[in-house]
Amino acid sequence: MGKVKDLRPIKLQERKLLAINQLLLPKELKWETLETYQQVAKAIKDMVVRGAPLIGVVGAYGFAIGVNQIVSQNQDLSKAEEVYNTLKNTRPTAVNLFWALDRMWNKLQKLINNGVEKETIVETLFKEAKKIEMEDYHANRNIGGYGEVFLPEKGNILTHCNTGALATSGWGTALGIIRTAFENGKDIKVFVDETRPYLQGARLTAWELEYEGIPHYLITDNSAGFLMKKGMVDAVVVGADRITRNGDVANKIGTYTLSVLAKEHNIPFYVAAPTSTFDLKTLKGEDIPIEERPQEEVKTCGGKQIAPDGTQAINYSFDITPSSNITAIITERGIISPVNRENVEKFFEYKGG
Amino acid sequence: MGKVKDLRPIKLQERKLLAINQLLLPKELKWETLETYQQVAKAIKDMVVRGAPLIGVVGAYGFAIGVNQIVSQNQDLSKAEEVYNTLKNTRPTAVNLFWALDRMWNKLQKLINNGVEKETIVETLFKEAKKIEMEDYHANRNIGGYGEVFLPEKGNILTHCNTGALATSGWGTALGIIRTAFENGKDIKVFVDETRPYLQGARLTAWELEYEGIPHYLITDNSAGFLMKKGMVDAVVVGADRITRNGDVANKIGTYTLSVLAKEHNIPFYVAAPTSTFDLKTLKGEDIPIEERPQEEVKTCGGKQIAPDGTQAINYSFDITPSSNITAIITERGIISPVNRENVEKFFEYKGG
Repeated sequence: MGKVKDLRPIKLQERKLLAINQLLLPKELKWETLETYQQVAKAIKDMVVRGAPLIGVVGAYGFAIGVNQIVSQNQDLSKAEEVYNTLKNTRPTAVNLFWALDRMWNKLQKLINNGVEKETIVETLFKEAKKIEMEDYHANRNIGGYGEVFLPEKGNILTHCNTGALATSGWGTALGIIRTAFENGKDIKVFVDETRPYLQGARLTAWELEYEGIPHYLITDNSAGFLMKKGMVDAVVVGADRITRNGDVANKIGTYTLSVLAKEHNIPFYVAAPTSTFDLKTLKGEDIPIEERPQEEVKTCGGKQIAPDGTQAINYSFDITPSSNITAIITERGIISPVNRENVEKFFEYKGG
Repeated sequence: MGKVKDLRPIKLQERKLLAINQLLLPKELKWETLETYQQVAKAIKDMVVRGAPLIGVVGAYGFAIGVNQIVSQNQDLSKAEEVYNTLKNTRPTAVNLFWALDRMWNKLQKLINNGVEKETIVETLFKEAKKIEMEDYHANRNIGGYGEVFLPEKGNILTHCNTGALATSGWGTALGIIRTAFENGKDIKVFVDETRPYLQGARLTAWELEYEGIPHYLITDNSAGFLMKKGMVDAVVVGADRITRNGDVANKIGTYTLSVLAKEHNIPFYVAAPTSTFDLKTLKGEDIPIEERPQEEVKTCGGKQIAPDGTQAINYSFDITPSSNITAIITERGIISPVNRENVEKFFEYKGG
């Protein structure tokens, strides 16, 4: 039975947020101190912290920190709207950030309406952010439990991007399923595709698996098809940044390609995500805004320019996997399978239009 | 109408071979001087020169250089076997190298049997290598002509790895088709996937297209599926390192994945290769030895380590695309389509077993 070390990517120190700087891994493990909501927003935008669930948790703490700044400077609480907008406008695709900020905003409004004293408001907001963090962690433990049964006793699992402790409040979603399987004594090896351009796979997932002592192999993104063809992959497990009402999934660029390959080789393709990832107001994948990031990320690797000066690059940060390519979605409240609009609506007892 | 500059990757200077060092592009354009067959072999093995047709041409010159060394040192011509083996054992997958070396070896044997004088033998071998180089160049111009008709008047073409002047004696195969289309005034834009780990796409293909003024965009290897899904790709054109009797193709890792994606989206998938790429003695793709290269190539990018020290990597340099995923193979002697054993055998008037 494996012993999981249970890494955490952030910690609260009084009213400051400490966060592992994910731009520097695996070479350097450095904790940044984020003391203002502007610093938190910049950390999200620059991808010092990343991973859909984690930016939700960090956004929540950022909001509490921002309200603390307002109260400390004796400003009017209506300025919290600026805090909300600054944090919300950092990155457009992952819905967890918007969900967490809306929850924090609604909490603040409730406290204001109840005439709660300002210092208590700040305290309560920090507690609410802590709740969001703990709920996310427990959701991941549940996802791990639900998902682990799908993995073979012995086999090779392919994963994409980073969906581990570094992408969440801890444990992870897709990587959390792998952690749980390892903890339960399954003989799992993980194929980690490097996930260009940001290299979440090579830099973050490989680092987490190395940290936990879970056997793994790093591969280039373009190798997955060949490994599947050679019969070397038993299942694919990935995370999600947003899931629509019909079960389409937006996730790190390259996910769609893996789903097509898995389908071609009859390999199960699982998406692991907490229910906070679902955006039921959006019907299908095509309606999700896909972030485009600076060309420089594609034109460089390892900090060095790899392409000619004049070359233009295209840098979509996410892609859309249609529900028909997904074997099952594994949430903290159970499984959705097959994945389609009817089953998603039923799962959430959705009554909207 | 575009004006193509017609770049060449090698040049013979007396009995020395000058070669652009492809490890240093795009940052630096440096010509190496290869004066011994051992230096030529090292240049092939280290991928200072690469590309199936080019390593055939370079291998041929290396053989002539080696025989020149033997004659200059007054050694017995039987030592040519060591030259042959050293060059042959550099890289196992591309058949052009073996074909070229066998042709040079047979020429040498014929000259010896005819009692030709040693200095004339050396001269004749250099002429034979020059013939191989020129035949490859003219084959590429033909491939360009045959293949160009398949490209739309206006559209986006996805290509993989580097199949240009830097992969051949000049003009290129898949990239040669693009050069010919550009020269004929077609409004073509090229999606260049970077092709990890060696980055032939980002470093070499983008550099060639920039040099020729052909519009192009660099993308990560994992983006191709999403671009196809968005309807942005009109055709895929790639090269080959070896083609078997049933039409299976070994090519740079990632090719198989692109073929599956193209099939999923009903996008034509063309393979451009001279007939010297065919290995009719080998029946199917599974029988081709797939080179594995050092893990370090995957664990680093842009010269910097991107993965943790302890992480193992898998580095298959090539993969196999089944003939059923290929729309047509375009050779210097015409088209094979559909691609299957019967049509390949007919094309080559194959009578063996």
